[in-house]
Amino acid sequence: MEQSRIDKIMARMKDAGLSQALLSDPYTLRYLTGDRFSPNERFLALLLREGQKPLLFLNKLFLAPHVAEENIVPYVDAERGALKVLPRIDKTQPLGIDKKLAAEFLLELQENGAASAYVNVSPCVDRVRAQKDAGEIAKMERASRLNDEVMLRVKEYVREGVTELELADRLNALYRELGAESLSFPSIVCFGANAADPHHAPDGTRLKPGECVLFDIGGVWDGYCSDMTRTYYFGEPSAHDREVYETVLRANLAAEAIMKPGVRFCDLDAAARKVITDAGWGPNFTHRLGHSIGLQGHEWGDVGEVNTEEVKPGNIFSCEPGIYLAGDTGVRIEDLCLITETGVKILNAAPKGLEVIPVR
Amino acid sequence: MEQSRIDKIMARMKDAGLSQALLSDPYTLRYLTGDRFSPNERFLALLLREGQKPLLFLNKLFLAPHVAEENIVPYVDAERGALKVLPRIDKTQPLGIDKKLAAEFLLELQENGAASAYVNVSPCVDRVRAQKDAGEIAKMERASRLNDEVMLRVKEYVREGVTELELADRLNALYRELGAESLSFPSIVCFGANAADPHHAPDGTRLKPGECVLFDIGGVWDGYCSDMTRTYYFGEPSAHDREVYETVLRANLAAEAIMKPGVRFCDLDAAARKVITDAGWGPNFTHRLGHSIGLQGHEWGDVGEVNTEEVKPGNIFSCEPGIYLAGDTGVRIEDLCLITETGVKILNAAPKGLEVIPVR
Repeated sequence: MEQSRIDKIMARMKDAGLSQALLSDPYTLRYLTGDRFSPNERFLALLLREGQKPLLFLNKLFLAPHVAEENIVPYVDAERGALKVLPRIDKTQPLGIDKKLAAEFLLELQENGAASAYVNVSPCVDRVRAQKDAGEIAKMERASRLNDEVMLRVKEYVREGVTELELADRLNALYRELGAESLSFPSIVCFGANAADPHHAPDGTRLKPGECVLFDIGGVWDGYCSDMTRTYYFGEPSAHDREVYETVLRANLAAEAIMKPGVRFCDLDAAARKVITDAGWGPNFTHRLGHSIGLQGHEWGDVGEVNTEEVKPGNIFSCEPGIYLAGDTGVRIEDLCLITETGVKILNAAPKGLEVIPVR
Repeated sequence: MEQSRIDKIMARMKDAGLSQALLSDPYTLRYLTGDRFSPNERFLALLLREGQKPLLFLNKLFLAPHVAEENIVPYVDAERGALKVLPRIDKTQPLGIDKKLAAEFLLELQENGAASAYVNVSPCVDRVRAQKDAGEIAKMERASRLNDEVMLRVKEYVREGVTELELADRLNALYRELGAESLSFPSIVCFGANAADPHHAPDGTRLKPGECVLFDIGGVWDGYCSDMTRTYYFGEPSAHDREVYETVLRANLAAEAIMKPGVRFCDLDAAARKVITDAGWGPNFTHRLGHSIGLQGHEWGDVGEVNTEEVKPGNIFSCEPGIYLAGDTGVRIEDLCLITETGVKILNAAPKGLEVIPVR
C-alpha cells in the first residue's frame, strides 16, 4: 500500500466531509497498491475509512501480491462482492464513490442502505493523482525519452510508397525493441489529407512526395505513458503548408512559454488558440489544447477552455495544438509538459522545427 | 435505429415496470443505432421512453451517422451532458439505468431529482442482446470461419526456436491479411509450462521439441468477435500429456453433447467439470466453462456453476474447459457454440483431435 498517497487522499476527503470512500478505478487501485488489475465486469474496490486500515474487495480469481492479507476481503463468483462492503462501513455517514464505479454496484449499495448519502469522491483522488511525485516523474521522463528515440528511428522508414500501416507496424516493433511494455494508445500515422482527421487510424494509404507525415505516438514505461506528435514533410512543402506548420509551432510555443504554477489550464488553451485564431484558422483547431497524462493516457485535468483550475507542480499534460484542413492537410505538434516549482520542463526533446525528410 | 431491437428491450422494460431507461454501454448503443462510439470519459447515453422517440445525448465531438437529427440531443464540453436528460424524463417515474453507467453521472441525476427511483435495467437489455438475430449469427459464423482459417495457417509457422511473440506477430498479420477489422483480444500463445497460466501473455520463450503449443485467438468481423483455443504438440507428447489432452477434449465434447434450448448454463459447466474431476484434475480446471460473446468478447451470460438460467436459441457462448498444471503443462480446447431451435451448432471447424506438429 502506498500509504502516503492514501493519506493525501484522506486529507482531501476530510476537507470534503467524508470519512469513508469506495475507490474502484483500476488505475487508482494500481496507484494506491502497486498492483495491476483487470477486473472487467467483476466488483473490485478499495475501501478507505478514517482511522482504519484500507480494505480491498477482491474476487479470488485475481491476485494482489503487494497487498497484505489483512487488507483483503476475498469473495468468489457465487457471492455479490459489493454486498461484502456493507458490514464494513458506517451506514450513518456519507460514502465517497469513485466516479467510474459501475452503476450496478452503486445501485446495489443504495438498495441495501449502505450509507447516509453517496458523494462523488473522485475530485479528492484526481487532484492527488494529478500531482506526480518524484518516482512517477522519473518514470514519465523515461517514457518520454523512449518516445523521442522511437520518433527519431521511425523517420528512417519514411520512403515513397510506404503505407501508414507499415509504419504503424514498424512503430510496434520499435517500442518493443526499446523495452516499452505496451503502447499508450494505437499509433496514429497520417499522410497528407489523412492528417486532417485528428483520430485517423493508419490504413493502406501510400506516401507520395510533398505530403506531410504525422506521427502521434506513445509507449508505456513501467506503467507510465508517453505521448508526442510530430509532423514532418516528405519532400519540400508548399508555402501554404509551411505557413500552417509555423502557425501550429508558434501556438505550441506560446502555451509552453507561459506554463508555471498558478496559470490556469484555460489560459494555456487560450494562448495557443489565439495564435491560430489570429492566423485565421481558429475554426480548424477543433479540440482542446491537451490532456493530463500519467498511468493513463488521458487523466483528469483537461487543458481546455472550460477548466479554470490552476496548474500545480507535478502536473503533467500535453500541449498539442493542431490545424486540420479537410481534404488538404493537417498539422499537430505535441509535447508533454511537467509543471515544476518555478516553471515548466518539456519532457520531449525530439526537434520540432519544420523538418523535411528527403525524397530518395 | 434498430427499432425491432429497441421494441424487444422496451417490452422487457414494461414487464419490469419501467417506462423509461438510460442506456450508456457503447456496445449496446452500437447494437441499437448501428454506430460505433468511443466516448471515453464523456457522457453518452440513449434515452428510451414509452411512446416517444429514442434520444441520443451526444457530445458534439462525436458523430452518429446512422442516427437521425431528430433523435440527437447534442451538447458541448462546456455543458454537463447528463443534465440535458432532466427535462426529457418523467420525474415521477422510475428510471432504468445501464449497469455500466459511470457513478458520476448517476449521482448527478440523483442529486437533481431526475426520477422517482433508479433501477438496473441491464437485465432487460442483456437478455435481448444474448439472443443473436439472423444477421448477427451470419457475422458470428463468418468471424469463426476466419478464425478457423487463421488457426490452420499459423501452424505453418510453428518450428523449433520460434518465440511466442513471433507467433503472436504472425497472428496479427494473418488476421489483417484475411480481412479481420481487429483482434477480439490480444492473442494468447503459450509453449509448454507457460500454458499452465490461462492468461499467459506471449513472451520471448522459444519452442522446444516435446512441448505443447496453445493458441487462444480471435478476430473481429464486421463488429462481431470470434474466440477459439487449440492446443497442439510440437513433436510426440508424453503419455501423461496425452492423458491430459484427451481428458480436456472429453470434457469439451461432454458439454457440447447436451447443448440445446432449456439446458441450464450451470449444467454445461457441470458436465465438463465432471469429466475433469473424475480424472482427478478437478482443482486444475480453475475457471468457468465459458462466456457469452458477440459484439464484445465477453458478454452477459456466464457458462459457470452459478448461472442457473436456461440457454435459448440464438445464444452464442464459448465451451473452453482446461487443465492447468503449474510448472508442467496446460491444455485448453475452446469452441464457440450457437444454440439453435433444436440443439447446437458449433461455429468452429478447426479439428480438435490431438495433433502433433512434426519437428522438422
